[in-house]
Amino acid sequence: MNLQSFVERSEGQWRSMRSGHSLAFQQFEEVLSQITIERLELTDERVIELIKTESGLEGTPDCPFRMEWSAESDWEPDDPSEVSAGSCILVPIPSSETSGILLRSVGYAEAEQAASHYQFLSDGTFVLTTKYGQSIAEERIWFVAEHVRCRSSVLRTSEGSGVLQTSFASEVRRLSV
Amino acid sequence: MNLQSFVERSEGQWRSMRSGHSLAFQQFEEVLSQITIERLELTDERVIELIKTESGLEGTPDCPFRMEWSAESDWEPDDPSEVSAGSCILVPIPSSETSGILLRSVGYAEAEQAASHYQFLSDGTFVLTTKYGQSIAEERIWFVAEHVRCRSSVLRTSEGSGVLQTSFASEVRRLSV
Repeated sequence: MNLQSFVERSEGQWRSMRSGHSLAFQQFEEVLSQITIERLELTDERVIELIKTESGLEGTPDCPFRMEWSAESDWEPDDPSEVSAGSCILVPIPSSETSGILLRSVGYAEAEQAASHYQFLSDGTFVLTTKYGQSIAEERIWFVAEHVRCRSSVLRTSEGSGVLQTSFASEVRRLSV
Repeated sequence: MNLQSFVERSEGQWRSMRSGHSLAFQQFEEVLSQITIERLELTDERVIELIKTESGLEGTPDCPFRMEWSAESDWEPDDPSEVSAGSCILVPIPSSETSGILLRSVGYAEAEQAASHYQFLSDGTFVLTTKYGQSIAEERIWFVAEHVRCRSSVLRTSEGSGVLQTSFASEVRRLSV
């Protein structure tokens, strides 16, 4: 698995079942959502804009893509931290065959632009680490079949090793669009 | 991460939050449980018994352990497939520094004795693959802090690549026993 095949395999429409675990309170959260991933051209205006905002970057952008999500159902509709729909531009900047930087127009844990570090593990699992102001998020994405992928996340405090919450999503490709 | 440090770090009492995803029906399941993991001696009667039952094994057993679990709560108490308590003897037989066979007195997906293949990925993630009569289970365990580990599982049909269900557990060590 390399960056190009990872983005190619991710492209399409997905139905996501996502469970969140709040460790301190032992609370579960369940969300069904739709995710759409599409590749973008390097000449796309949105890609160029995102690269411009980051200074001091080394390397050449490759395989940019766009992700869009919307929740179909959410059992905690009153939780203001729960964003039910949104979209994000993502631009990888490889530093080697298996690692690099991923620019995101919107972060995962906090709604601010973010530069994440990514790497591929020995079995092709994609691991993304993002430092925010108050927290560090680690996400993992791995394909378990051509049309099924899993995605986990762990959010911890940036000071110390306190783990705040975890989540896991099972994503099944929608074959009839 | 090697086998010995993995078993050492796993030892203790854990509180587990586990979410199950049934992909075909888009159903969620939530279980809170207690897990206890303890190392066993190679001379333990239960370890010797388990090794005896498997013929044609090559290699030397190392770091056997015992796992015990009991559900504290279960939102699907009528589901007969849900085992709410049990225990299992596990005996690793390394074939290299990072891979080998794991004997289990009780399987994960089906309640039969099983010989799984295990390997450690480049970041220390423990990956276990088990072939049952009708299904193949892949489990992953990785530590996200000294006292927090994550565990995912994917169950697929042994014929073809149909994914039946997935699960994810967040496990927090109980420090006051």
